[in-house]
Amino acid sequence: MSEFGKVAIFGAGLIGGSFALALKSARAVDEVVAFGRTPASLQEALELGLIDRAGINPAHEMGDADLVLIATPVAQMPGIMERIAPYLGPQTIVTDGGSTKCDVVAAARAAFGDKIAQFVPAHPIAGAENSGPSAARHDLYQGKKVVVTPLEENDDETLDRVKRAWALCGADIYELTPEYHDRVFAAVSHLPHLLSFALVHDLAVREDSEMFFTFAASGFRDFTRIAASHPEMWRDICLANRAAILQELERYTQELDELRSALLGNDGERLQQVFSLARQVRREWASDQ
Amino acid sequence: MSEFGKVAIFGAGLIGGSFALALKSARAVDEVVAFGRTPASLQEALELGLIDRAGINPAHEMGDADLVLIATPVAQMPGIMERIAPYLGPQTIVTDGGSTKCDVVAAARAAFGDKIAQFVPAHPIAGAENSGPSAARHDLYQGKKVVVTPLEENDDETLDRVKRAWALCGADIYELTPEYHDRVFAAVSHLPHLLSFALVHDLAVREDSEMFFTFAASGFRDFTRIAASHPEMWRDICLANRAAILQELERYTQELDELRSALLGNDGERLQQVFSLARQVRREWASDQ
Repeated sequence: MSEFGKVAIFGAGLIGGSFALALKSARAVDEVVAFGRTPASLQEALELGLIDRAGINPAHEMGDADLVLIATPVAQMPGIMERIAPYLGPQTIVTDGGSTKCDVVAAARAAFGDKIAQFVPAHPIAGAENSGPSAARHDLYQGKKVVVTPLEENDDETLDRVKRAWALCGADIYELTPEYHDRVFAAVSHLPHLLSFALVHDLAVREDSEMFFTFAASGFRDFTRIAASHPEMWRDICLANRAAILQELERYTQELDELRSALLGNDGERLQQVFSLARQVRREWASDQ
Repeated sequence: MSEFGKVAIFGAGLIGGSFALALKSARAVDEVVAFGRTPASLQEALELGLIDRAGINPAHEMGDADLVLIATPVAQMPGIMERIAPYLGPQTIVTDGGSTKCDVVAAARAAFGDKIAQFVPAHPIAGAENSGPSAARHDLYQGKKVVVTPLEENDDETLDRVKRAWALCGADIYELTPEYHDRVFAAVSHLPHLLSFALVHDLAVREDSEMFFTFAASGFRDFTRIAASHPEMWRDICLANRAAILQELERYTQELDELRSALLGNDGERLQQVFSLARQVRREWASDQ
């Protein structure tokens, strides 16, 4: 038997399908059984060889599963957790691929109760332009970051098993608390999306919006690329991580207030200080990537 | 004699050098004489064939010039205008390449006085990663937009001459008032730069900033690309266009306040409305480019 004998995944799309493929490539799994919202996507995942079997009733598949990955949109996770909780085997470890963590942890605590030690939250940082089973790739996680946000109830062995699974996928593993995770991603991902959506929206609702878009150029293109992101997904992320996003928005508004004061006061020196530090740090970051 | 016999340019870098090269390619000019801040850059422009001659004293070159392009940073334009104003011939037409217009017009009115009808402000929308004479290209303006912001004093013939020069460079010509120009560019260019600088600065000044940059990914990369822009140039643009930028910042802050309310009120419907409209408009814009 291989390292992870039976793996169950919920959602056989980009995240779940790539996870399954990567573990198969590493010969670390005997069987992957998958659950999905539509028979069609499960059929596609089967035909693409991402999974071995489409599951019918989760209740029948949890008892002997070694590892369960919940790779659905975060909004669907509480329902799935409640459905599987009664059936987990004593050896079954559950992890997830959600991009927010405090809300997932809260849902998991509510659903798993005294089995919460069996759940290790995780967030693979590997988006892509496309989604669905056909977007899955065996090397999606190669060299990518996966943040694991352990709970105090997790014992070392359980935590190591989840880290090991992601490491087999080729990922670099980081550990953060769920709270710190959510703060960091609010700042570097969620807030920028909000700001980009806001800019385009503010232009779009003007009577003469066409004139503005006529003269938008390459800087605008870069800044607003993320405003073409999926509205429902970003609504859910914003609601899921609203506390941290509101905190970051508050900080950012203060930063804008400072720039407004510098403009009002014709304070070129202050503007240049802010721009210079930003440029330096942005360039250092880019050269490290 | 060709259409524009003698052309004088101030600043033989990307903007001025490309303008000279394009007019030469179109055989629309007999002689290009250039002025610059350093002898070295003029020498380089000469060697690259961008210009025919490095000027020594502007006073001696204006009287028989047909067209003068001021293609320096905006901050240097008032001084140049004052120096050349007394020597313009009756046929000499002056234009500029500044990215803000109300401040340039104010400087021109102060410098040119009753010769203001000879000045036609313009803004070629053709930045590039690089600058200086070696970055100049004969086709820089091909298919690019040039915004001309005529003054009420300009007669049709003068205006047509400037539009014709830019058209010979291959540009598409647009006409806006200086005020409307500055509002549009505050919204689609200057404000996004400010917002991008602000985000990176806000992260950079945190004690644990390294952790934030560790998890910054592709969305952050796009959003902050313009935060690597030139600090002095953007300081000058912000000061030159501060009234319009402050107005746009005010609008944008209101937009953020609305999103904050939606987050506070758990109003997913409102968030999705904003995101959906932004996405739709951003995608339509991108597909038109």
